[in-house]
Amino acid sequence: MMRNNRLTVELGDQHSYPIYIGQELLSDADKLRSYIRGRQVCIVTNETIAPLYLEKVKRHLDAYQVNVVILPDGESFKTLDTVKGIYDCLLENNHNRTTTLIALGGGVVGDMTGYAAATYQRGVAFIQIPTTLLSQVDSSVGGKTGVNHPLGKNMVGAFHQPQCVIIDTDVLKTLPARELSAGMAEVIKYGLIADLPFYQWIEENITPLMSCDEHLMVEAITRSCQNKADVVLLDEKEDNIRAILNLGHTFGHAIETAQSYGVWLHGEAVAAGMVVALELSHLMGNIARAEVERLCNLLTRAHLPTRLPDNMSVEQFLALMLRDKKVLDGRLRLVLLESVGKAVVTDKASIEQVTQAIKNCF
Amino acid sequence: MMRNNRLTVELGDQHSYPIYIGQELLSDADKLRSYIRGRQVCIVTNETIAPLYLEKVKRHLDAYQVNVVILPDGESFKTLDTVKGIYDCLLENNHNRTTTLIALGGGVVGDMTGYAAATYQRGVAFIQIPTTLLSQVDSSVGGKTGVNHPLGKNMVGAFHQPQCVIIDTDVLKTLPARELSAGMAEVIKYGLIADLPFYQWIEENITPLMSCDEHLMVEAITRSCQNKADVVLLDEKEDNIRAILNLGHTFGHAIETAQSYGVWLHGEAVAAGMVVALELSHLMGNIARAEVERLCNLLTRAHLPTRLPDNMSVEQFLALMLRDKKVLDGRLRLVLLESVGKAVVTDKASIEQVTQAIKNCF
Repeated sequence: MMRNNRLTVELGDQHSYPIYIGQELLSDADKLRSYIRGRQVCIVTNETIAPLYLEKVKRHLDAYQVNVVILPDGESFKTLDTVKGIYDCLLENNHNRTTTLIALGGGVVGDMTGYAAATYQRGVAFIQIPTTLLSQVDSSVGGKTGVNHPLGKNMVGAFHQPQCVIIDTDVLKTLPARELSAGMAEVIKYGLIADLPFYQWIEENITPLMSCDEHLMVEAITRSCQNKADVVLLDEKEDNIRAILNLGHTFGHAIETAQSYGVWLHGEAVAAGMVVALELSHLMGNIARAEVERLCNLLTRAHLPTRLPDNMSVEQFLALMLRDKKVLDGRLRLVLLESVGKAVVTDKASIEQVTQAIKNCF
Repeated sequence: MMRNNRLTVELGDQHSYPIYIGQELLSDADKLRSYIRGRQVCIVTNETIAPLYLEKVKRHLDAYQVNVVILPDGESFKTLDTVKGIYDCLLENNHNRTTTLIALGGGVVGDMTGYAAATYQRGVAFIQIPTTLLSQVDSSVGGKTGVNHPLGKNMVGAFHQPQCVIIDTDVLKTLPARELSAGMAEVIKYGLIADLPFYQWIEENITPLMSCDEHLMVEAITRSCQNKADVVLLDEKEDNIRAILNLGHTFGHAIETAQSYGVWLHGEAVAAGMVVALELSHLMGNIARAEVERLCNLLTRAHLPTRLPDNMSVEQFLALMLRDKKVLDGRLRLVLLESVGKAVVTDKASIEQVTQAIKNCF
């Protein structure tokens, strides 16, 4: 029996939309078509995904004007110039305000397609079909779209909610193992920050999850998206709660920057960063040392790093973290655990404690 | 005695903001500062306005980090590349999410600054200080921001509301007479589409208005902004009401395109276009022929054209209008008067009637 879930993301005064999570959803023509507003569609994908899934999506759309933009693959192409290419395609083919953009790919494709949809003729519809575990559990919720600028990541962007998100877990079978692990780091993160039972469930099921067991994967993605949606909704009332989604990210960004982007995948850097965050939470007396070991065990079983890279120094970490945009007025605002399953944003950690935590994680 | 008005634009679920209209408002440091959120400001202006008013604004901001972007003057620079220059300035000077952009200039500066504010770090604050009559009565209300694409005007953009709009009527004294007339065309438009008493008031006061009488100008701008705000607010409930703001624009765009942009100013093209729209309203039996003459008299007193350009043919008009984005499914959707002071959007005019109306206006 196939397992299919439907989740509705409720976002206050913004429009709500569903996330469909299940097997063989790319074959569900009616589902896709029911979210297309007019008679025009523009599918945006990349050169890696196009040979695998473009025809599978396109064949449902015989009755529509369909144009396709195939982007080069990689974060380095997440620029305004690439988005300009999407505008060009839309205008050359006379797409009007009722057009629907379909993002078929990972986070980079989703961010750029969403941004093009947010800004084409002051906003048109778009549908997300994320094809990596990371984008399925991260980009599906929150409405963040945008591109990088030479002077900073995601510096140009807009909030724009999709019509719907279609997550077909079958696409994970063609995902490189390393990227599956990187996505799993974010899944584990949701357990750590907000959902202890989910964390325990991941521990129990990590081996079949890493083999892409379909039923378990549908469950893991659903609970990840639900947790993110809960946090994002809360943030509309309590400013800054959303920052807990960045557990491990301040340390992780330092790794990504120092190693130059791409050497460590984002999820890998977040994994090692979460270990530091838990170590620091331990040093501050919030959690037992055993909890740090417990996380390391889980990450190892997910084929993720648990130690910081040898070629970096503590000083380099601190310098990069102080440059990070999450630092306000020279105080380090960090996401730490109050307990396993409950994260908080705090600036109470002293520089000495942060230094010690980093040292302990090499 | 100085005349100062304050108008609040209420926009449903979007945030409301005030429009201040009066004399010597550029000298009011407290007013400006009270709408700046953080400690960083970026003033965007152009090479025509900067020598006239930049220092006047800047001197209120000694206590802030102030950066300035001076754009070249003209619609041809309303592009993504120019907006990129604004992002560059913001990032090179480390502007964070609490920064405030100030648009000091006409519609082009306002549209681009608003768009940069809408998309920098997914949206920052901005303040409008419009310096042309056209931008004071048109861009102050509605939240439309954006840039042109080689294949179409305003094709890339976003809705983004300012913190406030500051309209200093004294700046109109340095505005070229032709641009004052062009702005007056839009003022007259508000009377025609929605406010018969205002239309009569403009007729009574057109001579002192054209000499920039301060009290009358404050009144004219206030009632124009109020009329636009009423229409925009209504549009949230009744889809498409907003289109009545385009009275004369479909005909006007045809003129602008055929003459290449800039030969006729936008307001001049709208003036001649409104004459055609009223002629057509007469042919359809809505208004008396005398009303067309009445409008022509008023436009003439405002030094605006009332006839279509000799070098165009009826066929050329129809071809350009059918290409216009306001045409849906081959039917001409036009804004016509039901009576003076009440506009409607309709596709009831036959091609023959439209042709006749154009012919009658050469």
